[in-house]
Amino acid sequence: MKRIFIQEVVTRDGLQNEDQFIPTDKKVELINQLSDAGVDKIEVTSFVSPKAIPNLKDAEEVMSKIERKPGVIYSALVPNLRGVKRATSCAVDEINLLVSVSETHNLKNVRRTTDQTFESFHEIMSFLSNKNIRVNGSLGTSFGCPFEGNISEDSVLRLIDQYLELGVSGITLADTTGMATPTQVYQLSKNVLKHWPDLPLTLHFHNTRGMALANVNEGIRAGVTRFDSSLGGLGGCPFAPGATGNVCTEDLVHMLKFMGYEIKADLDQLIDSANYLQSRLTHDLPGQVVKAGKITDLHSASEL
Amino acid sequence: MKRIFIQEVVTRDGLQNEDQFIPTDKKVELINQLSDAGVDKIEVTSFVSPKAIPNLKDAEEVMSKIERKPGVIYSALVPNLRGVKRATSCAVDEINLLVSVSETHNLKNVRRTTDQTFESFHEIMSFLSNKNIRVNGSLGTSFGCPFEGNISEDSVLRLIDQYLELGVSGITLADTTGMATPTQVYQLSKNVLKHWPDLPLTLHFHNTRGMALANVNEGIRAGVTRFDSSLGGLGGCPFAPGATGNVCTEDLVHMLKFMGYEIKADLDQLIDSANYLQSRLTHDLPGQVVKAGKITDLHSASEL
Repeated sequence: MKRIFIQEVVTRDGLQNEDQFIPTDKKVELINQLSDAGVDKIEVTSFVSPKAIPNLKDAEEVMSKIERKPGVIYSALVPNLRGVKRATSCAVDEINLLVSVSETHNLKNVRRTTDQTFESFHEIMSFLSNKNIRVNGSLGTSFGCPFEGNISEDSVLRLIDQYLELGVSGITLADTTGMATPTQVYQLSKNVLKHWPDLPLTLHFHNTRGMALANVNEGIRAGVTRFDSSLGGLGGCPFAPGATGNVCTEDLVHMLKFMGYEIKADLDQLIDSANYLQSRLTHDLPGQVVKAGKITDLHSASEL
Repeated sequence: MKRIFIQEVVTRDGLQNEDQFIPTDKKVELINQLSDAGVDKIEVTSFVSPKAIPNLKDAEEVMSKIERKPGVIYSALVPNLRGVKRATSCAVDEINLLVSVSETHNLKNVRRTTDQTFESFHEIMSFLSNKNIRVNGSLGTSFGCPFEGNISEDSVLRLIDQYLELGVSGITLADTTGMATPTQVYQLSKNVLKHWPDLPLTLHFHNTRGMALANVNEGIRAGVTRFDSSLGGLGGCPFAPGATGNVCTEDLVHMLKFMGYEIKADLDQLIDSANYLQSRLTHDLPGQVVKAGKITDLHSASEL
């Protein structure tokens, strides 16, 4: 069966929304557990302003303290040249750039137009030109914008083109606020892979309206093999305090393994790590396999 | 686009797990709201022993007080001839029979073997022979049993055959404890519809491990057009107190409408009803669209 790659984002996309500061050693412990579990990539942190995201103010310290496991790609999200310099000083394996397809969302998120953002990416790429660091280009709001609504496929394709001209080695289409439908995921993924058949394409889903696992399946049907996910489903939606966050890693791996896909990560270790994460937080995580058990966890008939 | 039929089970499968008794007039109000919203079928109640399921002890009263809306099928789950006599006295449109494919689960659930259960169905069918009442045959644990584990497709096909010989007019495959994977749903549904192309086939999913919406999509891909669902996702898993229950009606309708399917039920009315249901309960409902809003609910850029 097809090999699917699991790319963990809990310590970046998950923790950035947490009010409570997670101590550095707990972050390091979590990342080491995820490396041991066998995820393919870990977005360790983000080199952003500590004022903007206080929970990630220890980015350098986390990067320097984690154990680097061969075969795992240690990535970091970086918003600007300053962040890139911090990230390269820590020897990250990959830098993840981000721009929103929606102009309004991009202005809101980084106070720059998409053109201004791409100008800064040019600076970044020339700074990185003599360094051996992979660069991935992420496109936020690829499936819809909470301000503008629909996002056209053409605008997504155009920005992929701009990213590839810059020389990035992979593209991530992010469903930033959980607006993607399965039909749309299939169509857009198919279209992107028709234009760039060999592109390492990642889909990044949020489970805001419950559709994330269905969206993953449609992505796979269209030929995508890389998915971002967050342990425990940690994350959130800025517009809906009660809503769930990123697609949950252990729920995703559980589904895909029992569908017969080849996944390097160990499901039991992921479930253990999700329980560890839950023990460090004061609110309930949305992951469901942790609560219900795997489909192979049978019960004794005397239990009821 | 394809017409998909939404069959609401909240007042039966949802409420049967509630410790707190929901007053009869609230049940009636909820069912009337669901009729107005335009769902295709409502499993109103179950004619079981009030000792077994105290929350459904008012089955006759609920059936007699609801407003019957033309075009909506009012159904009831019935475990035995005694229940059938009660149900027919209330003029239900459809009687839903239930047997588990898993012998262990059936013994646990109704303290009879599947053969004994089918014997009682013969009695029921002969009692109903001169009455104009539809009968649907449900198969519990069709995708896996929490005691026995895997359930073979052959055993499902065999029991469908037994039901059809009895003269039922439709079949429901129920994923009683949320064990179905998308791959399995596609394969089993395809196989059933290959054997009986014109069979009115319903899939009944629980979202115990987060896969229900993905399973619905695979059911549709295999040709299924009828789905049971529960408003707010009310329901539960007897083995996992924290786990979610049935697939959530408004989340299901939200996904399918935005995928372009034709659904009679009005999404906004369903969301209003889910909020009404939430206001009658003391615990949080798992439905996500109620918390996050529809994907078309846009925000002002000044909101953040």
